[in-house]
Amino acid sequence: MPDPIETTLQAPLAGCGARSVLADRFLAVRARTRWLCSTLATEDHITQSMPLASPAKWHLAHTTWFFERFVLQAFLPGYAPFDAEFEYLFNSYYDSVGTRIAQAERGTLTRPTLERVHAYREHVEQAISVCLGQIPDSAWSTVAATLELGLQHEQQHQELLVTDILHLFLSHPFGTRYLSDAVPANAPDPGPLRVQRFEEGVVSIGIDAEAASFAYDNESPRHRRFLEPYALATRPSTNQEYLAFVESGGYADPAHWLSLGWSRVQSESWRHPLYWKRDAHTGAWLEFTAWGWIPLDPHRPVCHLSYFEADAFARWSGARLPTEFQWEAAMTTSVIAHPARERALHPTGEPFAAPLGVGEVWEWTRSSYEAYPGYAIPPGALGEYNGKFMCNQYVLRGGSCATPPGHIRPSYRNFFPPEARWQFSGVRLAFEGPDQAPSDSRGSH
Amino acid sequence: MPDPIETTLQAPLAGCGARSVLADRFLAVRARTRWLCSTLATEDHITQSMPLASPAKWHLAHTTWFFERFVLQAFLPGYAPFDAEFEYLFNSYYDSVGTRIAQAERGTLTRPTLERVHAYREHVEQAISVCLGQIPDSAWSTVAATLELGLQHEQQHQELLVTDILHLFLSHPFGTRYLSDAVPANAPDPGPLRVQRFEEGVVSIGIDAEAASFAYDNESPRHRRFLEPYALATRPSTNQEYLAFVESGGYADPAHWLSLGWSRVQSESWRHPLYWKRDAHTGAWLEFTAWGWIPLDPHRPVCHLSYFEADAFARWSGARLPTEFQWEAAMTTSVIAHPARERALHPTGEPFAAPLGVGEVWEWTRSSYEAYPGYAIPPGALGEYNGKFMCNQYVLRGGSCATPPGHIRPSYRNFFPPEARWQFSGVRLAFEGPDQAPSDSRGSH
Amino acid sequence: MPDPIETTLQAPLAGCGARSVLADRFLAVRARTRWLCSTLATEDHITQSMPLASPAKWHLAHTTWFFERFVLQAFLPGYAPFDAEFEYLFNSYYDSVGTRIAQAERGTLTRPTLERVHAYREHVEQAISVCLGQIPDSAWSTVAATLELGLQHEQQHQELLVTDILHLFLSHPFGTRYLSDAVPANAPDPGPLRVQRFEEGVVSIGIDAEAASFAYDNESPRHRRFLEPYALATRPSTNQEYLAFVESGGYADPAHWLSLGWSRVQSESWRHPLYWKRDAHTGAWLEFTAWGWIPLDPHRPVCHLSYFEADAFARWSGARLPTEFQWEAAMTTSVIAHPARERALHPTGEPFAAPLGVGEVWEWTRSSYEAYPGYAIPPGALGEYNGKFMCNQYVLRGGSCATPPGHIRPSYRNFFPPEARWQFSGVRLAFEGPDQAPSDSRGSH
Amino acid sequence: MPDPIETTLQAPLAGCGARSVLADRFLAVRARTRWLCSTLATEDHITQSMPLASPAKWHLAHTTWFFERFVLQAFLPGYAPFDAEFEYLFNSYYDSVGTRIAQAERGTLTRPTLERVHAYREHVEQAISVCLGQIPDSAWSTVAATLELGLQHEQQHQELLVTDILHLFLSHPFGTRYLSDAVPANAPDPGPLRVQRFEEGVVSIGIDAEAASFAYDNESPRHRRFLEPYALATRPSTNQEYLAFVESGGYADPAHWLSLGWSRVQSESWRHPLYWKRDAHTGAWLEFTAWGWIPLDPHRPVCHLSYFEADAFARWSGARLPTEFQWEAAMTTSVIAHPARERALHPTGEPFAAPLGVGEVWEWTRSSYEAYPGYAIPPGALGEYNGKFMCNQYVLRGGSCATPPGHIRPSYRNFFPPEARWQFSGVRLAFEGPDQAPSDSRGSH
Repeated sequence: MPDPIETTLQAPLAGCGARSVLADRFLAVRARTRWLCSTLATEDHITQSMPLASPAKWHLAHTTWFFERFVLQAFLPGYAPFDAEFEYLFNSYYDSVGTRIAQAERGTLTRPTLERVHAYREHVEQAISVCLGQIPDSAWSTVAATLELGLQHEQQHQELLVTDILHLFLSHPFGTRYLSDAVPANAPDPGPLRVQRFEEGVVSIGIDAEAASFAYDNESPRHRRFLEPYALATRPSTNQEYLAFVESGGYADPAHWLSLGWSRVQSESWRHPLYWKRDAHTGAWLEFTAWGWIPLDPHRPVCHLSYFEADAFARWSGARLPTEFQWEAAMTTSVIAHPARERALHPTGEPFAAPLGVGEVWEWTRSSYEAYPGYAIPPGALGEYNGKFMCNQYVLRGGSCATPPGHIRPSYRNFFPPEARWQFSGVRLAFEGPDQAPSDSRGSH
Repeated sequence: MPDPIETTLQAPLAGCGARSVLADRFLAVRARTRWLCSTLATEDHITQSMPLASPAKWHLAHTTWFFERFVLQAFLPGYAPFDAEFEYLFNSYYDSVGTRIAQAERGTLTRPTLERVHAYREHVEQAISVCLGQIPDSAWSTVAATLELGLQHEQQHQELLVTDILHLFLSHPFGTRYLSDAVPANAPDPGPLRVQRFEEGVVSIGIDAEAASFAYDNESPRHRRFLEPYALATRPSTNQEYLAFVESGGYADPAHWLSLGWSRVQSESWRHPLYWKRDAHTGAWLEFTAWGWIPLDPHRPVCHLSYFEADAFARWSGARLPTEFQWEAAMTTSVIAHPARERALHPTGEPFAAPLGVGEVWEWTRSSYEAYPGYAIPPGALGEYNGKFMCNQYVLRGGSCATPPGHIRPSYRNFFPPEARWQFSGVRLAFEGPDQAPSDSRGSH
Repeated sequence: MPDPIETTLQAPLAGCGARSVLADRFLAVRARTRWLCSTLATEDHITQSMPLASPAKWHLAHTTWFFERFVLQAFLPGYAPFDAEFEYLFNSYYDSVGTRIAQAERGTLTRPTLERVHAYREHVEQAISVCLGQIPDSAWSTVAATLELGLQHEQQHQELLVTDILHLFLSHPFGTRYLSDAVPANAPDPGPLRVQRFEEGVVSIGIDAEAASFAYDNESPRHRRFLEPYALATRPSTNQEYLAFVESGGYADPAHWLSLGWSRVQSESWRHPLYWKRDAHTGAWLEFTAWGWIPLDPHRPVCHLSYFEADAFARWSGARLPTEFQWEAAMTTSVIAHPARERALHPTGEPFAAPLGVGEVWEWTRSSYEAYPGYAIPPGALGEYNGKFMCNQYVLRGGSCATPPGHIRPSYRNFFPPEARWQFSGVRLAFEGPDQAPSDSRGSH
Repeated sequence: MPDPIETTLQAPLAGCGARSVLADRFLAVRARTRWLCSTLATEDHITQSMPLASPAKWHLAHTTWFFERFVLQAFLPGYAPFDAEFEYLFNSYYDSVGTRIAQAERGTLTRPTLERVHAYREHVEQAISVCLGQIPDSAWSTVAATLELGLQHEQQHQELLVTDILHLFLSHPFGTRYLSDAVPANAPDPGPLRVQRFEEGVVSIGIDAEAASFAYDNESPRHRRFLEPYALATRPSTNQEYLAFVESGGYADPAHWLSLGWSRVQSESWRHPLYWKRDAHTGAWLEFTAWGWIPLDPHRPVCHLSYFEADAFARWSGARLPTEFQWEAAMTTSVIAHPARERALHPTGEPFAAPLGVGEVWEWTRSSYEAYPGYAIPPGALGEYNGKFMCNQYVLRGGSCATPPGHIRPSYRNFFPPEARWQFSGVRLAFEGPDQAPSDSRGSH
């Protein structure tokens, strides 16, 4: 399953200025979505494995509806929707544009068929092409911004599509493989955890929306924060490190857990990460991956953790989770997307080329997802994109092996409820106050 | 969607004596299951619309597993299962043969693909053919009886397959059509309800298992019941008659309902049968059918009723539901399966050729599903077929437009929980004691 | 806690003819209700331990409301309700007389206080006395019948009051004692189970409502049933016999259980009867009683069984539960209420004076609670007393140690859902067909 | 219901230095808890109206257990627990000291009786008196700190006791009055909303644990935050202002609500605050208070709001909720507890004597409850007091009419889940960024 569009995708976003550049980018992003489904059977596109996940077919259609609703209907004179029923079926959560199917019922949609959804995709792609050719210069920047938002949106759904498929395949009694190629060899030992220390001071957080090539509204406004001294681990924690927590009885001692986390441990009988199990015969630890159930690789980053698990592990480790501001301040100058990431649907565990490299697993922060000072929800339907979710969710920073190119940047804010366990979510330990670790090196803002 | 095997299926069961007859019947039944799926898209085979319903793919595989497990593994030396995982995936409820997937999770099985399930069907069909050729005469009657049970079982699943698909298609926000041909014309007016009266006396109920060509264990032993005088309507109640109940406020007055039924009316906001709705624009009543949503035909039998609704309607009508014994005693000499039934996936409403004809809709009785006197659960896994379900279910008698040939007989006992609303279940009024209707004619046992 | 009114209560009902007799009986029944609460703290009257149970205070008030609503408001000119709010608070399930508090919320009523409820009781008792003195002879029979229904109703609630209190006291982490006197000695060994055989034939079931001194509507009409030959155990099964089922793994093998019962065993982790546990230190079996947790007496009747448990035990025993018709036909001539019953709040296990004596524990039958042939729900609010509950409940026959005098008769039909475990409900084994036990003696109808 | 201990309570905490001062304070706090129950019937002490609320009897016992467990058992040689079972019954959530009854089952405890709980209180109070006399000087500071924590703990439960009782009384179908005295007159009109503006800058947040007379662990460490410019309303919003939101359709438009809040509005049919309703006859708005249902006073602060409602109202108002840091920085120099607060169990609506007075209603902030930089959970059981609840809860600042003396301070952090509606929780509007209100005056940190 080689990724044919890799080069294109790595091109800079370039301000979305030139029409042909944006048109090329549009086609490349759309092609990548199709490519992610290329190993799936028709049957795999239909089923919803839990209310928070969506069927692959729904991702294919919903991302297309976004372009139809917000670009074609707004900017292409005379455009008629491909199918009037799709407005209801493939709207995700935009209450202001009409009624929609309940999220938990997306799996009841056996129709339209997958074939018809692909026809819908082609129809909309052709119409976008027409639209890009007809837009007068005066409207260009508005259209380009909306189109770019649609592309970013589709890329976000690419990652969800991968994680939703993996959750579906995990739910099968025997596990289903996403990839049929050979399981990769184990990763090299990264050595003991090291930390980097940061001094106190006022830092700038977030992005200046006017100056950025692209950013979501929740990354703005750029504003100031004061940080007390802290230290961060230079890499995420590994399976081996997490296994020590599991095998020392970490899931049996309430002292490690938040109260809500401990309730969850008990009510759902959590004993280890959701994507782990022990081989019924040998007792060896296995991990569920794109290649099905494989032996747990001790040196890869632990992933598919909930916030509750990440937090408990950090407390057990004598550390804590970083705030999203500590994280962003540290990463400003040192983010390196992992070079092998493009082809991976699982963390590689290979060493980073930078002191604090990210991009293998999303990193839970202890920060609740909240509006930045001065943030105002944008007007119109697209204002529903982010702001209304700012409650009972926790911010993850960085990006994962499943994150599309261009979506890993210091200011990017991902978020999930604290019990969510199906993302490529891991943990980077932080230290502050009385648990401050001895520093190995020094960073500055 | 003509039924190519109709003639074969109408042949008498003939004691299962001759091998070639049974082999032909085996192929005919198997072909009919495929035929029932012939208008479905692959996507339609996967989804489970509620815990009590199963995906079409699951029906296709489970009926096949039944032959593999109880015929091939028992009687074909050296037979190896097609796929060892199928034992777990496609066992329905036979606890004594091993663990199995939870019923409510059958919709998570995107694999095996539909194509592979069809290969499984072909594999088993060929092995059955081999098996029928190899069985020694000494073992023939045992094998034939098990094979016949498998065929009866598959036919039962044919009806469930139809009703499960219709429920799935109903669940689609806009309804999905099962059949693409023209919606049939309205049925003729059957005229006012007439009744037939029956005298008191001891009657024989059930079937002598030794003498019958085929019957389920729950139809035996044949035994005696005393019946007080009663009367039965000569036909099921119609949509028009039920509509009068709906429009007179029947769903708003607790006086008509059993206490559990009234709870359900309130907690699930029942206002009319599940497969009815009013057109949002015209206010006209519509009914969901194999042709999607169509105008409610006043003269067809009302169907898709729960026991609660059938009971409330009967009480509102100044009548009651019959007991299953009243029903069976009345039907002994007068059952005529409706001639047009083979091609129908909806009640036709055409007049019966017999005074008390049945076969358009299943008829709720007020009898709880209970063992007959002297009934003992058969030994072995097949003993799980019926007996363990004898609790909180109510018996339906007769048969519906979706019932396969050979499954309509006076002693046949169908059963569902009182809240079930997705079968072709209707109501035939009974009268006894103080509410006895004036009789139009007289029957005798 | 001697019962001061025993003698009065054992007097025959006597047709309710004489006013003074009925007035005396009224006061005696009312006094017995108070007496049942005499060992309770105020606090014990308030709490609802599960939705199906009611607080003692609610029983005290509801039984009073019944007299106020159906006697005083109907027959005492100028009577004004004691408190207008009580109509809403203490109506149980009479939808036709107005809205009412949800059953599951009866425990939220801290007000009226217990003291005020007792004042309500006295107020109504005095008004009934006035009413009985004023009723003209022409209305007497109607008033007397309604008053008698109120008394029967209050007696039914006396039994519920006892079982609801015991369930509440069981729910306390350490158990609460209802009685403070000495725990009685163990019962004598009743010896091996013996059976009595009954021949086939037509029997009369139920009561002629016109002729009876008192019976509920659900015991009528008297009608005929044909019974095939059967046999009944001469006594209920004991703790020792049930313990053999428990210790042989009865709760771990689905083969013994109805499908719904097995689901309940798994979802609620049933391992033994609800009122049993093993001592944490000695491992000895304990039973929860009016005296708190005491050692399990091997020879007393097993009680507090659900229908599911009674049915599974019967199947494991090679027997079955009787139908309610087998039970009633057998008991017609031989019921002897246990002589020591008056003072007992637990089965005594003492030998019966009659061949088939009853009255220690309610006996589950396998009959679903269903209307008799010709039964019609009575008009008016009192028609809600029985008929609307005829769904998904199973009939118990006989009576228990907690059943008030006069409520044990062959035609009496008690009923509960199959999962109910808090009544004094046990099991009498039946035999028929292939599992017929060798008979010890012969009975006839 | 005059408060006899008012004067004592208003005395400064005085460092807990002198034994006699602490002993007096101990008795005063204990007496106030009894006083809060003085108008309750025994029955009112027993019932749990929802899982998050506790019965009054449980509050009385649990606060006593705290002293027994953490003071007497630790520091009074030879002290034996009053009742060994109380360890299980009255432990709230300290997992590290043993098993305990589930929070939702506190209402099943009819025993010990209220009388026995009061005996328990007296027993422990006498033992504390003995303990205070025996402690050697060397241990005094430790004992005094633990005792003081117990007093702060009991005071927190005093407020919960009040709000839990009010919720119970609200749950009664007709409402129950807590106070029997006359309903107070309406409050004066506070005039239009005015704001105070604050400049940007680094502020100090939290308390230096070493220097403070008393503070909870969650108020430390003192640390620095950078605040962008903002403004705060000088008073909480009123019923009249909130009513405008209700009557303009605020509960019907998803645009105002967080996504989780909107789900709650729909699933629980929220149409107005939980403690409001319209009079069934006149249509006038009523509010549930300690005096039962009374006409809504337009000028008192709106209270009993959830975070979801406070947030939606703020958004509808063109404002937002403050962060807890904005709130604390503003309040540092200007907190005035409302002078009439002592006797009030409902906000008075009387004018504040200070520019930004607080203390009538708790004020929701938009800050998730999170550890301060450098915070570490204290060792031992008391470490469970705060830290493990730091997830999916939101901080409230200030204090309410039900908050005991000494619990209103700028650094105090109260917290509840965003759906909680039964506290005296209101809203103070904040402005920042593009929605900055014109300032009326200027504040500084």
